[in-house]
Order: sequence, then structure tokens, then C-alpha cells
Amino acid sequence: MAAPGKLTRIGLAGLAVMGQNLALNIAEKGFPISVYNRTTSKVDETVERAKAEGNLPLYGFHDPESFVQSIQKPRVIIMLVKAGAPVDQTIKTLSAYLEKGDCIIDGGNEWYENTERREKAMAELGLLYLGMGVSGGEEGARNGPSLMPGGSYEAFKNIEDILVKVAAQVPDSGPCVTYIGKGGSGNFVKMIHNGIEYGDMQLIAEAYDVLKSVGKLSNEELHQVFSEWNKGELLSFLIEITADIFSIKDDKADGYLVDKVLDKTGMKGTGKWTVQQAADLSVAVPTIASSLDARFLSGLKEERVEAAKVFGSGLNDVLAPQEVDKAKLIDDVRQALYASKICSYAQGMNLIRAKSIEKGWDLKLGELARIWKGGCIIRAIFLDRIKRAYDRKPDLANLLVDTEFAKEIMERQSAWRRVVCLAINSGISTPGMSSSLAYFDSYRRERLPANLVQAQRDYFGAHTYERTDVEGSFHTEWFKIAKQLKN
Amino acid sequence: MAAPGKLTRIGLAGLAVMGQNLALNIAEKGFPISVYNRTTSKVDETVERAKAEGNLPLYGFHDPESFVQSIQKPRVIIMLVKAGAPVDQTIKTLSAYLEKGDCIIDGGNEWYENTERREKAMAELGLLYLGMGVSGGEEGARNGPSLMPGGSYEAFKNIEDILVKVAAQVPDSGPCVTYIGKGGSGNFVKMIHNGIEYGDMQLIAEAYDVLKSVGKLSNEELHQVFSEWNKGELLSFLIEITADIFSIKDDKADGYLVDKVLDKTGMKGTGKWTVQQAADLSVAVPTIASSLDARFLSGLKEERVEAAKVFGSGLNDVLAPQEVDKAKLIDDVRQALYASKICSYAQGMNLIRAKSIEKGWDLKLGELARIWKGGCIIRAIFLDRIKRAYDRKPDLANLLVDTEFAKEIMERQSAWRRVVCLAINSGISTPGMSSSLAYFDSYRRERLPANLVQAQRDYFGAHTYERTDVEGSFHTEWFKIAKQLKN
Repeated sequence: MAAPGKLTRIGLAGLAVMGQNLALNIAEKGFPISVYNRTTSKVDETVERAKAEGNLPLYGFHDPESFVQSIQKPRVIIMLVKAGAPVDQTIKTLSAYLEKGDCIIDGGNEWYENTERREKAMAELGLLYLGMGVSGGEEGARNGPSLMPGGSYEAFKNIEDILVKVAAQVPDSGPCVTYIGKGGSGNFVKMIHNGIEYGDMQLIAEAYDVLKSVGKLSNEELHQVFSEWNKGELLSFLIEITADIFSIKDDKADGYLVDKVLDKTGMKGTGKWTVQQAADLSVAVPTIASSLDARFLSGLKEERVEAAKVFGSGLNDVLAPQEVDKAKLIDDVRQALYASKICSYAQGMNLIRAKSIEKGWDLKLGELARIWKGGCIIRAIFLDRIKRAYDRKPDLANLLVDTEFAKEIMERQSAWRRVVCLAINSGISTPGMSSSLAYFDSYRRERLPANLVQAQRDYFGAHTYERTDVEGSFHTEWFKIAKQLKN
Repeated sequence: MAAPGKLTRIGLAGLAVMGQNLALNIAEKGFPISVYNRTTSKVDETVERAKAEGNLPLYGFHDPESFVQSIQKPRVIIMLVKAGAPVDQTIKTLSAYLEKGDCIIDGGNEWYENTERREKAMAELGLLYLGMGVSGGEEGARNGPSLMPGGSYEAFKNIEDILVKVAAQVPDSGPCVTYIGKGGSGNFVKMIHNGIEYGDMQLIAEAYDVLKSVGKLSNEELHQVFSEWNKGELLSFLIEITADIFSIKDDKADGYLVDKVLDKTGMKGTGKWTVQQAADLSVAVPTIASSLDARFLSGLKEERVEAAKVFGSGLNDVLAPQEVDKAKLIDDVRQALYASKICSYAQGMNLIRAKSIEKGWDLKLGELARIWKGGCIIRAIFLDRIKRAYDRKPDLANLLVDTEFAKEIMERQSAWRRVVCLAINSGISTPGMSSSLAYFDSYRRERLPANLVQAQRDYFGAHTYERTDVEGSFHTEWFKIAKQLKN
């Protein structure tokens, strides 16, 4: 174990691939770093990689005490371990050797309330704490992630210089990091980022489905289409990797690899939390919810195979083969995807704002769009528009009514409606696109049929109702009156 | 305060309208009952009502001690107070005077975990506890509710004779009560009942919206249509009261009352819990979730009015007025409503089963359909079909694939697709019907585009994937391969 000549600037504990990569990134930016892992072979592995990648100033330790003592004060240690109990365990191990003013940063996808609990417990020991969302996967961690630190502002200031260098750098919009806010806000914002990511991925999958199943596009054509889309308004990491995926041949059999991948999608919890928080905060997030449902339904592969047998032949009687103009379809799907994406981001942003108000976090929505422009999975040129929308009007009620987005939706809504109806008449489900459209058509509607629902509630539960013409709260004896009318 | 000549059979604490009505119902069935309320005027009010309604054997008490001591042992006391802290407070007040073997029953819409916590705490005192869902609103409480008792089986047996008499009585299917299961299962089942109720109400509101906004039906015609529907497969309490609602004129101004009711829907928490539990249990419930979202969006009345101004004129360019054959539209909407309803119940039932498995409750889905046939808000002839489906096959994976339901969906799917597309092309959102259709089209699909989502996850996060042709878990270096292909 090489010990540094003098104390290092920062420490990192938890050396799975994400942790290794982030440590190497920090070292590469010129900040000497100490690293530690309970399974010590991971420490040696990381040290080897640091050597191989250019003798980076990275120093490995096999025990927590010498690890902590190798870091200059006030010490800052980033943890990248599994959320939940392992985080508590690591905090316990490290804090035994920490001193007042030292800081621990949790870089995992932690539930924000756990971070708030830990921040309080740490404060009682005189220690600082940050919950920092890190997005960008393994590649982002190594070459520049999007960082969402929340918690102690003092702790943030202690390492701001490191984070600014380590984060993804985007021309014109700067490093992809900002102090998010107090408490668990960093984790919360990262959670919603992931929810939005679910939505983006589902919408792309639906675009793929319509183009392949209705438009009969080959993988070569899909590769071309997504490559082309990645030059315009849809330019983004997810569209880029989608184009890549369609270009890759199977190495085990004939054909393309994507066709051999089983249609079952895994998940890790942040999408679920997003939907649950939305329900708690009374915010509609149908696009994100439908993407979560799509993952649940994908998991029922065996049931779907059985159901397909039950309904198989009967469907052909109903679903007329669609006459399709390929070029027109591709253009329509692009527009439907884009318009749906606006709805999805509108939902995610409004969810963040609702939480910010509840918790008094004072989050800056435009600034979040800025730090998502690089490093993270949802990075996209589209985020510039969102930033502009909030720059124009920081208290914008909904992205849909921003002048630029409103105009874009208007231009695309015919195509959007065509694609959803085409899918419905082809028996292809587009839950993300259709729930986005329903969201738009509900939000822009002055008068919804909710009057009937409220009348029903007053009928059977005396829940009262308001009127359109007079202030106040009213109750009607619907049952009695209806009974009289019948007699 | 009249004291009974001898001890009463049961007690009831909490005399808001629901409590009063349930107490009168019990007394009317011949079970002498003691009643108590912290605000004593409610006690006197209830006693007066008991007199007025035929000298029913109901006895009021102004203090908890004499209330408890007026009941025969083992004592059983039903609480009907607000969920949460008031329940704990009432338990504390009453249990001071209770003795081993006595029982408290919570008849409110309580979160099931609170019931489980209380059942444990009560057991330590030698007391029994039930969490009992009570559905049917004020009218049901008085004349026969649907009762969903869960918790101590011993406690249930102590009052089974009362519950069987007090519950709604349905010819052919019996009294609307059964022992649900252990722990908080009674509250849980009632919660899902309410989630299903949200779905039913939203689907009816959408049917109304399409008929009114696209079909241009008057309230008189809507009254006729819903009255007609209430004679067939849609026969249900909610369709019946909807027909009633359209018949009622405004007493403050010209026209019909329903048109003056503000389009803002309230809610009380059980719909939210349903959606959150579904996310926890990985069960897709898009119809129920969309009905919750519709309530959230209905609440944003001021934002909607503003958004309508932004998009108003532009929509007319896009949304062609639809040529509509009224009779055909009415028939199509009926079919779309029915097919969507099947999806909604399929989701709710699968959510109950998932929880039952998690908790080991061994719930009987067909039996639940039976006890919902009377008394409760979702009572409907439709529930017979659900009972038959589970009688045919207790481990049915999904109601959609039951032979009877599958046939019904097949027959209705053309109409269903027509209605959703008509709504989309008219700018009317039908989030419940369209998410139900997407649910059906996803569930019956052997191959979903989830392969692409999983490929993306493996690309950026090394989450691995399964293959369609070979067992095992695979990872591909997508980025590297794509890079090579580009060079």
C-alpha cells in the first residue's frame, strides 16, 4: 500500500466500479485521493488502475483508521456503497475516526429521508453530511458525471473546487454541478431525474415499437432514423445509444442483438419512489407512472405469452393492417416523441417544485436543467429549452404553457394524435405517449367532467361541492330529489 | 340518559352521521346498543333519533366509564372516528375501562399498518382488535353496508351474528360481510375497494364527457342513456346515481344542477394509498392511477383556465368537428366503459392478491366480489361475473384472461378503440379509458419493446439482460462495439 508523502485532499470509500471510476476521475483532476474498501482486493485493483491510467495520485488503504488519518482536515469522504444499511454501517465505521468539522458525502441513490436522518445524527457529533446524487453511470463517474449535492452548505463549500472540476463540463453552460439545497434535496432531485429517465426510455421504446411493428422498419432503418433524430431537437444521450444499439449484430447467432434481448426490464427503486412521492404531493405524473407500469408488465412475460394465446386470433379480425407512408410515419413519431417528452419533463419539474415548497428547499428549476445538460443519462439539447423557459419565468406554472414549448406542442399535436390513434388501431400500446397526450388535453381544458365526479361524491357521501357561479360550499339531497322526480 | 334495564350487547363510539346511522342499524336489527361520543350533544341527538325511528334499543352515555360498563362481556365496541390520532385517543380512553377478552373495532378508513400496530398493542393488554372497512356511505351505514372485518378471528366470531344481520342483504349471494383475514387485511381491502371506486367514477365521467362534448347529448338525453345502461351489464349504484344526477334541476338558477357544479374533485387519501401500494408491490394499476391524476388535475382549475387561453384558438385548427351518429356513439361508449371497467377491476384484484401473498393473508378474491355486491359504492351486477371467474379458477392470473371476460372484451374492443380515438381527435382526454386500453394491449402482448429498455440499461449501467434463446444473464460492451462500427 503506497502511503502518500503528505495528507491527501479527499477520501473515497466503496470501490465497486462507480466508486473506482469516480476516485480515478478526482485523482486525474489533480486532487490526491485516499481510497478504502472493506473487501481489500478492490483497493488493490483501484491502485493498479490508477497506476495504469497514468500514475494518478491515488492511495489505497486496507483499514479504515489509516484511511481516515491519511486525509487532510477538515476531512471529506465520499461513500459509494449500496443504499440503506450498508450506508449506515460505513458511516459507523468511518465516524469512529472522524473529528469535528469533518464531512461524509453519500453518493448513492439514497431515499432522501435517510439522508436527513443521518445529517441530523452526524450534526450531533459535530460532523457534516451531504447526500449527493451522481448520475452518468460508470462512464460518467470516470469522465464527468452530473452531481447533485444537497445538505450542509458548509460541507459543499469545502469541496466545491473538487466537484466543479470533476463534474461534466458543458460548453456555454459550465460544470454540471450546483449546490441543490438543504437536507435531502440532492437525493430527491436525483430521484426525480431517474423518474424522468424512466419516462424518456419508455417513450423511446414506444417510438421503436410503432416504427418496427406498424412501419415495419428494419434495425438498419431504425439505426438510421435514430441517428438522424440525434442531429435535431431530440439530440440526447439516450437517442444516441438507441441508434448505437440498433447497429450491433448478435455475436451468438444471426441477426441483431436487440432482437435477442428478452423483453423484461429491471428496475432499482427510484422510479417507484418518484410515483409514490407524486401521489403524496398531489402532482399528476402519468408519463412517468406509465413507464413504471410498463416495466411491471414487462416482467409478466409468462402471463403475457398466455394472454397472447387467449386473444391472438381474435385480434386479427379487428385490427386492420394499416396503410403506412414510412417517411410520414417516421416524421410523425418524431413529433409525438418530442411532444410527449415535454409533458414528461413538465410533470417531473412540477413534482420537484411541489416538494421544494413543502420542504422549504427553494430549489431552482432552471439551474437543475443546466446541471443535467452533461454527464447524466438524460443529458439532451432539450434541457436548454427548459432552462430558457424558467429563465423567462421562474414561477412558470407548467412547462406546457411556456411560450416556446406551447408553440412546439401546437405544431406537433396533429402528428401526436395521429401516432397514438394509429397505435391503438394497430393493437400496439403506447402508454407513455397516450398518457402524455391525455395529460396535455386535461391540463389545457378549462372545464373537465370532474363536476360529475364531485356531484357523485356529494350524492353518496355528502362531501359537498362548489359552484361555478356562486362562492361557497354546497350540499344537495340528490337522492331525495331524484326520488321525488321518479314518483 | 336512559340506562338499559340490563347490559347491552355492543357499544359504538363516535357519533358523526356514519356512526349514528350504523348504531341505529344495529339497534334496529334487535341488538341493544350503548353509544358514546366525546361531544355529548351527539349522544343526545342519536338517542332522539332512536326514539323517533321506532323506540330502537339504543342507550346513550356521556362518560366513557359508564358507557363501557353498560356493555355485556366480552365487550365489543365499534369506533367510528377520524383515522389517525383520534383513533389512538379513543382507544386510550376506552381501554382504561376494558377487561381481558374485550374487543375494539375500528370502522374507519384507516391505514392498514396502523391497525396492525394497534392490534399488537391491544394484544399485550389481553384485548382483541379488528380493523373493519365499512362501505356504503351514510345511507349504507343505516340500511346495510358492506363490511370488511380483518384482524382477530376470535373477535370476529364474537360479533359475527350482529354483522351478518347489519350488513346489506343480497338475494342469491347473502349478507355482504365475511371475515377478510388477519392483521390489517380488512382496511387494506377497503382501501382497494375505494381505489376501484375512483376508477369507476372516472370512467363514468369520461363517458359523460364524450357523450356531452362530442355527441352533444343534453342532460335529458344523458339521463335517458344512463337509465338505460342501468338495465344491462352496467347495472350498478354509480350508474344509477349518475342517471339521477342528470335529472336534477338547479334550485338557484335556470338549467340543470350538474352544469353548475365546479369541476374540482376532492379526495380523502385511500386512492393515493392504493397507487402507492401498487408501486410498492410492482403491480400496474394505470386505470386507478389515472383517476387519481384526474382528481389532481381537476384541482388546478385556475391553471387550466390560463392554459385554455394559451392553447384555445390553436386547437380549432387541428381538431376537426367529428361527424357523429348519436345512437352508434352511445352504444360505443357503453362498450368502451364496460371494457375499461374490466381492466380496472383486474388491476385492483391483482393488487389485493399481491398484498395477500406478501402478508400471508390468504384472501379469497371471489368472496370479496361477493361481499361488494350490496351495500357499498361499487355494488354492481358486474361483480357476479368476477365471482364466477374466480370460482372457475381461483388462481386466475388476471381477470382479462377469464373465458367470459376475454370474450366480452373481444366483442367490445372495436368500439373501445373507436371511442378513445374519437376522443383524441376531438381534444377530449379519456385518461381512464385510454390507459385501460393500453393496459389490455400491453398485457396481451407476447413481445413488448422492453427489450430496448433493457438494452439501454445494459448499455449505460451494465445492468445485464436475459436472452430469448439462451438461459443466463448477459452483458455486452455496447459502447465499445458501436465505437468500432463507427470507425
